[in-house]
Amino acid sequence: MKDSRYAEAGVDIDAKAAALERARAAIRSTFTPGVLGDVGGFGGLFRPDFSGLRDPVLVASADGVGTKLKIAIATGRHDTCGADLVNHCVNDILVQGAWPLFFLDYVAAGRLEAEVLQQVIEGVARGCRENGTALLGGETAEMPGFYAAGDYDLAGTIVGVVDRGRILDGSRIAAGDLALGLPSAGLHTNGYSLARRIFFESLGKSADDRFPPLPGTIADALLAPHLSYLRPLEPLLARDLVHGMAHITGGGFYDNIPRVLPEGLGVRIQSGSWPVPALFGILAREGDVSFEEMHRVFNMGIGMVVFVGVSDLAQVEALWRDAHVAWHRIGAVEIGERRVVIE
Amino acid sequence: MKDSRYAEAGVDIDAKAAALERARAAIRSTFTPGVLGDVGGFGGLFRPDFSGLRDPVLVASADGVGTKLKIAIATGRHDTCGADLVNHCVNDILVQGAWPLFFLDYVAAGRLEAEVLQQVIEGVARGCRENGTALLGGETAEMPGFYAAGDYDLAGTIVGVVDRGRILDGSRIAAGDLALGLPSAGLHTNGYSLARRIFFESLGKSADDRFPPLPGTIADALLAPHLSYLRPLEPLLARDLVHGMAHITGGGFYDNIPRVLPEGLGVRIQSGSWPVPALFGILAREGDVSFEEMHRVFNMGIGMVVFVGVSDLAQVEALWRDAHVAWHRIGAVEIGERRVVIE
Repeated sequence: MKDSRYAEAGVDIDAKAAALERARAAIRSTFTPGVLGDVGGFGGLFRPDFSGLRDPVLVASADGVGTKLKIAIATGRHDTCGADLVNHCVNDILVQGAWPLFFLDYVAAGRLEAEVLQQVIEGVARGCRENGTALLGGETAEMPGFYAAGDYDLAGTIVGVVDRGRILDGSRIAAGDLALGLPSAGLHTNGYSLARRIFFESLGKSADDRFPPLPGTIADALLAPHLSYLRPLEPLLARDLVHGMAHITGGGFYDNIPRVLPEGLGVRIQSGSWPVPALFGILAREGDVSFEEMHRVFNMGIGMVVFVGVSDLAQVEALWRDAHVAWHRIGAVEIGERRVVIE
Repeated sequence: MKDSRYAEAGVDIDAKAAALERARAAIRSTFTPGVLGDVGGFGGLFRPDFSGLRDPVLVASADGVGTKLKIAIATGRHDTCGADLVNHCVNDILVQGAWPLFFLDYVAAGRLEAEVLQQVIEGVARGCRENGTALLGGETAEMPGFYAAGDYDLAGTIVGVVDRGRILDGSRIAAGDLALGLPSAGLHTNGYSLARRIFFESLGKSADDRFPPLPGTIADALLAPHLSYLRPLEPLLARDLVHGMAHITGGGFYDNIPRVLPEGLGVRIQSGSWPVPALFGILAREGDVSFEEMHRVFNMGIGMVVFVGVSDLAQVEALWRDAHVAWHRIGAVEIGERRVVIE
């Protein structure tokens, strides 16, 4: 009896170990040639191959899934939040021109349900595999008293590399450049507190309800995973065609685009130049949310904005056509205040 | 009114920005020469200086503070958990011989109190400065509905480097090697669920109560920050004197030491060879916790175990005497099963 005091207090080290063991196969499946050693060491080892880079610079970013997790938890669908997290992080360093090397995750819960943990980690591993990124480590924390039963939090950190001379900091963006938009798959990982309030509080709906014209349930629409833009941008970055990028996350067009604009340049976006998915129209109408706030809180169907020179457009069009990439020409850079106007 | 819908739903983007602005000075104070750019980009940029390394290998580890945070939150003392987190992570890669390069943190709460956030981030920054580690980035997540009012979670990821030929994986540990123990400052970041249960549930104490022979309050004892062992180990690593190390975290001596032992070697630890701080005696007695479980859940006053060759002991003694490092000779490596015996 004495030996189980710690388990009684809410931490079952053996159960945690068993769950992690089942996730190890998934973690190993992400291992790229740089990974040394196996799962379970104190720290993950990664031997970077910087051949071909003149002056390698590491780029790192941390992020969480946020309250989108509430929908995963409410519906018991724990297999998509991992891709949300990894893809979000991949995009965050991609906008600086960086290629992902490895990822580490953090899962915290009051008590870890082995099957839930397994689904979450397998989802993270799948996201890593799809981006050619090693899942190099992670922490699984049981914190009794911090999380409601069944709740968990999921966050992660990505590390990538870019050659110093090719860091995208927006300084190449010039007046006349085109703003090209890559479609999002839904809300990605932003605006969930408001979306949940509108659907589940104001409208009193359940996650498994249908809400035409959404094709499936509300949960289907809200759980659509955050897309990675690594594959569409790979051929453009290889040819040095990108002047700058903005990942449309919290703060929407208004906050994210100016972060990469040089002083003295603004961006004019043409509303209507891309199809806004039905989900956003529902949120605006049912939540009585203004046009401006919709574009500040949500991505409105555009997950990444890519700035390219007018003279490069034909080449970009050809590359994206060959790669079957969907895109829209949504605006242009002009001389003016460093801000976004959506008209 | 319409513009504040998102704020009503529990996310105040402006308040978050204001709090982060106040933490920026602290973050900048951690910047080492490798950091490019300023706070606030999409991803942090770090240009590694690998001169002097033949075959650099990156070492990464993620961790959280765990339920020690409950005591910080209950007492409103948010300035020490940052050092807990950073030092824990530094130690986790140090055991592989790695030197820290940069750190990223993750703070999540239901609603971020600007002053609390500022204290937490300043604490993380202080921890980074003390380890010569750049605080390269982080995420601050507001997750209404996930955390009780006033609660928050804090986790982080560290990235360091080690020359491939000097990775410590335990393979240099040999029969006859000595186990040297570096003192901990208290529980560090492990065993808090049990310690809180004993003090606050079984004994019905408050965090601000005194409990002789503890020198201050219970909170003072429980909040003592996790120590970094970077400085004590620096001179030993530089002279290649370390055969292996074990960071005594969750799982204590029994789980952490075998992780670095080669097959066919065990470790015999002499209980009584170091002074066990009063806090551990109180927990054992008041919680009726067995000797074995005490050594599995808690560090018992030893935060790091360092394995060195017998013939190097005099040199290690001299180095640590010169650097005013406290240490204890606590056991030895012997031929046998890969496990720890504490006698």
